[in-house]
Amino acid sequence: MIRLSVLYPAGEGATFDHDYYREHHVPLCLRTWNLDSAEIDRGLDGPYVAAVHLRFESPEHVAAAMGNEGTAEILADVANYTNITPVLQTSEVVA
Amino acid sequence: MIRLSVLYPAGEGATFDHDYYREHHVPLCLRTWNLDSAEIDRGLDGPYVAAVHLRFESPEHVAAAMGNEGTAEILADVANYTNITPVLQTSEVVA
Repeated sequence: MIRLSVLYPAGEGATFDHDYYREHHVPLCLRTWNLDSAEIDRGLDGPYVAAVHLRFESPEHVAAAMGNEGTAEILADVANYTNITPVLQTSEVVA
Repeated sequence: MIRLSVLYPAGEGATFDHDYYREHHVPLCLRTWNLDSAEIDRGLDGPYVAAVHLRFESPEHVAAAMGNEGTAEILADVANYTNITPVLQTSEVVA
């Protein structure tokens, strides 16, 4: 199982609309990439103000999602909730 | 619900023993902090070579864990599997 974590670093002047993210953006990702669920974080302490953790069956499924024609819409939607450039982390879930 | 993510940044000369982490260190954390389970990541792509995600009921439970007398043993064990200084992220799980 693969975890794709999208992490939004805190920084001066950084903005993030948690409501829009939860109600619009993440559901758009789930629909586009045909995923069942996501775990959404609101940062309390540490380097990130927000994050989402998505699970894919394999690295190939992640690559297919990134190449999905709907992914352009997802990327275009980012400006609607944040001015932060997210950091992507792909990991194998080992336990 | 609170997620405590412990993130291990990649870097030149960084070492990380994933087997020791999974078999010894994370179980020690679970026993000491009386947690049911942890999600362990092995980084494939991105800024982190490894991570663990732990769930606590509240920020007060996180604070109590950090103040637990067994936490010194956990911190002393870090040198047994990595030379990386981990990054801590505390978040509220919103969905």
